[in-house]
Parts: sequence; C-alpha cells; structure tokens
Amino acid sequence: MARAEGRGVTPQSQDFSAWYNELVLKAELVDRGPVRGTMVIRPYGYRIWELLVAELDEKIKQTGHHNAYFPLLIPEAHLKKEADHVEGFAPELAVVTHAGGEHLEEPLVVRPTSETVIGETFARWIDSYRDLPLLINQWSNIVRWELRPRLLLRTTEFLWQEGHTAHADEADAEREVEVATRFYEDVAQDHCAIPVIVGDKTPTERFPGAVRTVTLEAMMRDGRALQAGTSHYLGTNFAEAFDITYTGADGVRTHCHTTSWGVSTRLLGGIVMVHGDDRGLILPPRLAPFQVVLVPIGRGEEFEKTLKSAQTLAESLVAQGVRVHVDQRPHLSPGFKFNDWEMRGVPVRVELGPRELAADSVVVVDRLGMARTTELTANFVEGIVEHLEAFQSALYERALAFRDEHTRRVDTFDDLVSAVEDGFAYSFHCGDGTCERRFQELTGATPRCIPRDEPAAEGICPICGKPSAYGKRIVFARAY
Amino acid sequence: MARAEGRGVTPQSQDFSAWYNELVLKAELVDRGPVRGTMVIRPYGYRIWELLVAELDEKIKQTGHHNAYFPLLIPEAHLKKEADHVEGFAPELAVVTHAGGEHLEEPLVVRPTSETVIGETFARWIDSYRDLPLLINQWSNIVRWELRPRLLLRTTEFLWQEGHTAHADEADAEREVEVATRFYEDVAQDHCAIPVIVGDKTPTERFPGAVRTVTLEAMMRDGRALQAGTSHYLGTNFAEAFDITYTGADGVRTHCHTTSWGVSTRLLGGIVMVHGDDRGLILPPRLAPFQVVLVPIGRGEEFEKTLKSAQTLAESLVAQGVRVHVDQRPHLSPGFKFNDWEMRGVPVRVELGPRELAADSVVVVDRLGMARTTELTANFVEGIVEHLEAFQSALYERALAFRDEHTRRVDTFDDLVSAVEDGFAYSFHCGDGTCERRFQELTGATPRCIPRDEPAAEGICPICGKPSAYGKRIVFARAY
Repeated sequence: MARAEGRGVTPQSQDFSAWYNELVLKAELVDRGPVRGTMVIRPYGYRIWELLVAELDEKIKQTGHHNAYFPLLIPEAHLKKEADHVEGFAPELAVVTHAGGEHLEEPLVVRPTSETVIGETFARWIDSYRDLPLLINQWSNIVRWELRPRLLLRTTEFLWQEGHTAHADEADAEREVEVATRFYEDVAQDHCAIPVIVGDKTPTERFPGAVRTVTLEAMMRDGRALQAGTSHYLGTNFAEAFDITYTGADGVRTHCHTTSWGVSTRLLGGIVMVHGDDRGLILPPRLAPFQVVLVPIGRGEEFEKTLKSAQTLAESLVAQGVRVHVDQRPHLSPGFKFNDWEMRGVPVRVELGPRELAADSVVVVDRLGMARTTELTANFVEGIVEHLEAFQSALYERALAFRDEHTRRVDTFDDLVSAVEDGFAYSFHCGDGTCERRFQELTGATPRCIPRDEPAAEGICPICGKPSAYGKRIVFARAY
Repeated sequence: MARAEGRGVTPQSQDFSAWYNELVLKAELVDRGPVRGTMVIRPYGYRIWELLVAELDEKIKQTGHHNAYFPLLIPEAHLKKEADHVEGFAPELAVVTHAGGEHLEEPLVVRPTSETVIGETFARWIDSYRDLPLLINQWSNIVRWELRPRLLLRTTEFLWQEGHTAHADEADAEREVEVATRFYEDVAQDHCAIPVIVGDKTPTERFPGAVRTVTLEAMMRDGRALQAGTSHYLGTNFAEAFDITYTGADGVRTHCHTTSWGVSTRLLGGIVMVHGDDRGLILPPRLAPFQVVLVPIGRGEEFEKTLKSAQTLAESLVAQGVRVHVDQRPHLSPGFKFNDWEMRGVPVRVELGPRELAADSVVVVDRLGMARTTELTANFVEGIVEHLEAFQSALYERALAFRDEHTRRVDTFDDLVSAVEDGFAYSFHCGDGTCERRFQELTGATPRCIPRDEPAAEGICPICGKPSAYGKRIVFARAY
C-alpha cells in the first residue's frame, strides 16, 4: 500500500492531539471515510482488533454466553419505550426515512446500541425460569452521530461487542455484571497492557436506562481518562419497557433483571495513547499483528543471501507461535524500514546483514528500550517467547508507573484543579450534579468513577464544601 | 430458551415453502425482526455461520488477503458514479436523511454492497505498481430493501463477506476471480456438502457494473436453484468511476482492473433446503454446532448415573475434537428430546439408559440413516471421527444424486418447460434478453449459468428457434 507522505509525527509533548491524529493515519491503523466522522479500519488496525476479538470472544463463550445477531434498523417507537434511554441517545441518532424507493411510515433508527431490539426479542424467547439466565452476545457495528468526531475514539460508526443478558433476580444480574467487568479487566490489563481503575459511575455519568454502570478507566499519556469498557445493571427498566417476564417455579410471573456490557474499537485508540511515543506506536506483543519484523540488508547477491536467511529464521520463529514478517520491499532503504516499523510499533525488529550472516548472529532492537544488541541467532530464537512476554509486562509496568506519577490525592480546590490538568485526582465529592457541572465548565474534568480499591473515608467536597456522598474518594479527570 | 410451540413441520412434499418457513423458526436458526424483512440470527444459526466464517476466513488469509472495515453509510453521490451499479441497486436502497437531530444536506445510503466506498479508498491507497495487487476482504452487514423477503434467503439485512481487489491488468484480475471462485467451491462442497455448478452468468444476470460474473449454483430439494456465491471481474468500470490508477514500472499512469466477490448468510438457507427432510434439518458435521448430542435416560438416581456416564463419554468425544452436547433438561421426556435434536439436524444422537450403562454400550441414531444401532461405548468413541466424516460424504453424495435425478438435457420447448418445473434444464439458448424474459414470464425460470463443465456444442434455442449463443448448453431453472 501507498506509504503516508513524510516521516515522523508531531512530538507528543508539543501537541498530543496532533501527535495522535497524525499517528493513527501514518501508522495505517485507520483512514478517514467519505462521510464526516466515519473511518476506514485499515488491515493493520483491523488485525489488532481481530486479535482482541479472538481473546474476548473466547472468554465470552467459555462462560456460557452465546453469540447471535440482531437487526441494525430499529423502529423509532422501540427506542421511546424506555424514557431515559431515548433521552440519552436521541441527539446521536441516524434515521432512515426512505427505503425501497418509498417514504417509510415509521422512521427507522440505525442502532446506537441494541437494548431495545434485543429486549423485544427476549420477551418472546423467555417463558419460564428454566430459560434463565439468557446470556447473549453480539459483535456488530454501531452508529452514533458525533459532534466532535475523533478517529477510533469517537467515530460516527464503530465496531463493538455488546452483551445482553436476562436473569431471574438482581443478585444473578449483579453477578453477571461482575463476570463482564472481569472480561474487560483481563483484556485491558493482560492483552492491551493497560492498567484500569474499576468502579461505579456516578449517577450523571451512567448509561441511559441503567441502575448501575461499572466502568474501567484508563489513563492516556496526556493524563486524560479513557473509558475502556462498561458493564450495566439495568434493573427491571428494560424488562418493564419490553415486558420481559418469566414464570417462576412457584407459577408467579415476574420481570427479569437485565444487564448489558460492551467494549469497542475505541480500545485501539487507548492502546495508541497509553503506549505510544514520539517515534510512533508501541504495540503490546499479544495484540501486535507482527511481533517480530525481520529486515534483510544488502545489495544484489548479498540481499538474496540475507533474505534467504531471514526466511529461514522466520520459519523457526513461526514454529514457536510468533507472528513474524520479513520486510523484503526492494525499493526502500533499511533506514526507511527501521523508521517505518518503529512508527507501526512492532515490539522487536531484527536486522540481518552480511556481517551478521557470517557470524550466525542478528542485530535485535527492542521497541521499548531501543537498544541495539547483537545476539547469536540460535540464542535469539530460543529466547524470543520470553522476550515478548517480558516486553508485554514491561509495557504494563511502564503504563502503571506513568499513571501513578500522574495521580494525586487532593483535598483543596486549587489542588484538584491543578491535578486534573495532567492526570487523575482522588478527591471527596458531594455527589451533587450542579457541583459536578460547575467544575466541568471550569476545568473540563468530570467524575470518572467511584474506585473499588479505594478505602472507605469521609471528607469535604473541595468544590462546594459539602460532605462527601460516596463514602470514599472518587476519581476526577478530563476524559476522551 | 423457550421452545417453539408444537412439534413437527408441514411436510416438504405438501408445501416446500411452508416447510422451510416453519423449520428455520422451529429449529431456532432465526427469528423475525421487528422491521419487515429483517431477521434475528439465533445462537444455533449464528454458530453455523461462525463455523463457516472460520473456514472461509482462513482460506482468505492464507491467500494473501487482508481483512479491513469500511463505513456503513455511503454518500448517495458515490453510488451514482457507476451508472449500471446505481441503476441495479437504486430500488433496494435504505436512505438516512436525518442524523444528529438535523436534516442532512446529502442523503446517505446504507451500504447495499461496498464497491463504491472501497473504490474511493483504493484510489487513495494505490499509487505505484508496487501497491498491487491490493487484496482486501470485509466481513460486514448489508441492507437491501427486499419486496418479497424470505428468512435467510432474501432479508432486508444480511451478513456477508465481500472481497475487493485491485490489479495491474485483466489477467491478474481474472486469476483473482478464479481464486475466490475456488474458495466458494471448497466451502460449498467440502463444508456445506452442497454440490455446485460453476459458470458465468449470462449478461442479464450479471452484477450491476461487472464485466463478468462467475456464479455457483446449487439445487434445493424442490428443484429450484440457489446462487451460493458470486465472484465478479469488474474490468476498469469502477476504476474509471473512482479514478483508481497506478504508475507502472514504465512511469505510465494506468487504470486498475478490479474484482469483488461475496457469500452471505443465505448459504445457511441453502444448507436447510439442500439437506433437510420432513423431520427437520440435517446439518453437515463440519458446520454442525453439535455433531453429537447425548441424551441420558432414567429417573431419579438412575438419571444421575446415566448423566454422569454421559458426561464422561462427552469428555472422551471432546478429546477427539468432536463438538458434543449433553441434554440434561430435567423437565423434558427422552422422546421430546429425540424429536427436538432431529428437528435441529444433529448428525449423531446417542441414547444412554440404565440398560446401556450396564452393558457399557450406547444406542446410536444417525440423522441420515435413522437406524438405531447398539454399540459398545469404546467402539463408538473409537469410530466417531470416521462416522462423522462418512456422514459428511454421504450427505454430499445424496445431494449430488438428487441433483442428477432432477436434471434433464432438453431440446424442445415442451421438455424445457417441464424440466424447470422441478429441476435444472440444460438447454441451448439464443442469448437474447427478450427471449429470456418471455420464458421467465411463462415459467418463472431464468438462465442460471453457462456451466464450465459442459462440453462445447451448437444447437437451436427451443424458445425462439434461433441458433445458440454460448457455444454450449446453459442451465435454466427457477431460482430463489
């Protein structure tokens, strides 16, 4: 494919936003679509998504959930059945008014999420307590009309997974919310190498129609928060709106308790912003399309030899389950290739020239440390799996250290304002929506979550001086 | 999940169409969506699709294609750039006219296929001959407003895979059309156990905008044809419309030659109609969500014992890579379960009662032969992989024999009319569109393809008496 014009991107420190926008395009993760706010997910970005999907899909299936597929187009009346839900999504809807050459009597909404169409279906599928729990997941595309679109993070269309489940009672539904939260924690931390803070959303930040929203919040390298996934306990709100009921063993007809939970392609944006640096992406090995790239070096016959040697080396890496690519593009210089693969965040680059070939060795450059080391080829092959695992851990630890450095526990208004300028603030809060909005207008920061791991404590809201409402400090930050 | 009310379906011989419509619902492959013509793909049906996707996706990747994702919403003007294309799809479009609470200046079409949005993108991605061939595939949902919708076969929304590729010249593009055709032939025959006739479409039946369409035609058990997949050589039509050009090694700027190819969830409808019988579905083992279902039988303590034994047996089957399910629903009788799994087309059912337990044996019922045989458990386990392979082959051979029985080579008008009543007719044809339409109005049958395997021959069109245009007999049939 055609390369992006020009090398390098604006440094992070100079303009984080420009760095991000340039990088996701130049690293060929995505491209812009013809309609404002839409994106094309390019093969390199899509492969990361596929690897993430495979991991998450396996977890979903192993815990007794079944994949299914529900319609894209939803009658407008369906959305209106749950009052909070329609109020939350109305401003973002795309509406089909014509189809098959005719004006439709009832407009159809392109799904902004599927609680309503799935709720209507669950009502038909569930009859007895024996049909519960009903555990369904859908991989699909979603359309939400974004006023301020941003590639991968906030696009008019994105891909996601949405779990929808129905249960006999609150306790079982709440267990499900925990199961889903655990999926996301594992995928974020173990695969994306992104540390997350898990906790409930405050009422103003809840999903429209939810009783409780559990969120996973991650810190980007500009100190802002990204919501990496959410899991909602919907109570009987949707069950009442769509008449999702079951007959218990006692013969009594009762409303189900439902949940929904999702993660989307915005997680790819999180990987970019948590790990990337001025050279480009740094991909966690578990999700890197290529974990190792081999660059054979030389001219004419020399190149033929190093290429052949690189191909042999590639085979022994593949045999160990490593995703490897040999860069044999004849028209590009080694230097260009090095920059290119650094930009694309490949964890390990191997340079193989005539000198290395003669010594049965390779030059290895780790994308995290960026040190060039010469290793015997046999040693490199033997150590590669461990090398990639160490890379994965180091990436996580680095992100965790960064978050710690940019997190402050604050008790005064001035400290709170200053902390959210470049990181997370743990602060008491009165829980009043007006107080939240006032602070948001001033700083752009909002409550991100009521962190689970935070110990119980009481204190004073530094914004308004009233007592804290949550029994502990909560996290404030500016967010994507 | 709630079971469909009532057992059994209308017999095929009585009303094939009613049989199909009842079966796909009762076997829980699909459900109806809230909008006319839409469907819900239920877990049982979706799992078949997932197994098919896994096979096809592997073939696609192994041949150097890359998955990517392009936007759902396409500016109306894009579609109009290729005249035949827009003419073909205009009657089926769903159009978004409002989004984000506002009237859109330019209406957006929900993709009926993605040649246009991908063409526009390819124009930006392709610069030099080094960027070719560009081999892209997309897994996505598609919306086409159907006047006469039919579950799985012709739904307003369906899932599919669409390959889109760009090449330096016609020869390379034609090679690609063959690669894709081969994917589909393999998946249809080896996995779906559906014999297909491969050949070019006649001009009237081509994809809108294509120079050549290769199709795979399968015969359903009512003698009608189903198009199982198509692969199009688009010439430079889309390249000219979207300015997809490359600079050759000689420095000359040239239009690319492009292809597109797809198979969809309608293939699941094909599996139903090629293999099913009056008892229900018969699933090819390679795509069956459960290849073996174990039904433990007994009451109280006896049931506990047979259930435990069934679970042990299941483990030894899983160890051989068999997809197995133990039906332990306590509230249903063995007889109900037998009917249920027959309806759902499970290849092998195993009954395990106290008598079998005592004799270390199992009762085995093969969905194709329906004979009940008692086997020693150890022998059953040892032979299961072979049993399933034999089942897969027998299913294919049975479909092939059925097709042969319902295929006639005809030379007179009366024979042609009678042959297409319940099967395929190999007939000469003049190639004139008016003649085709006349015949279609009379019989509902159309030319399905110019079959590759048919030897060269000359003859007279039995409809109009003019000489044949294709140098061989072509296939006529009524089609879904």
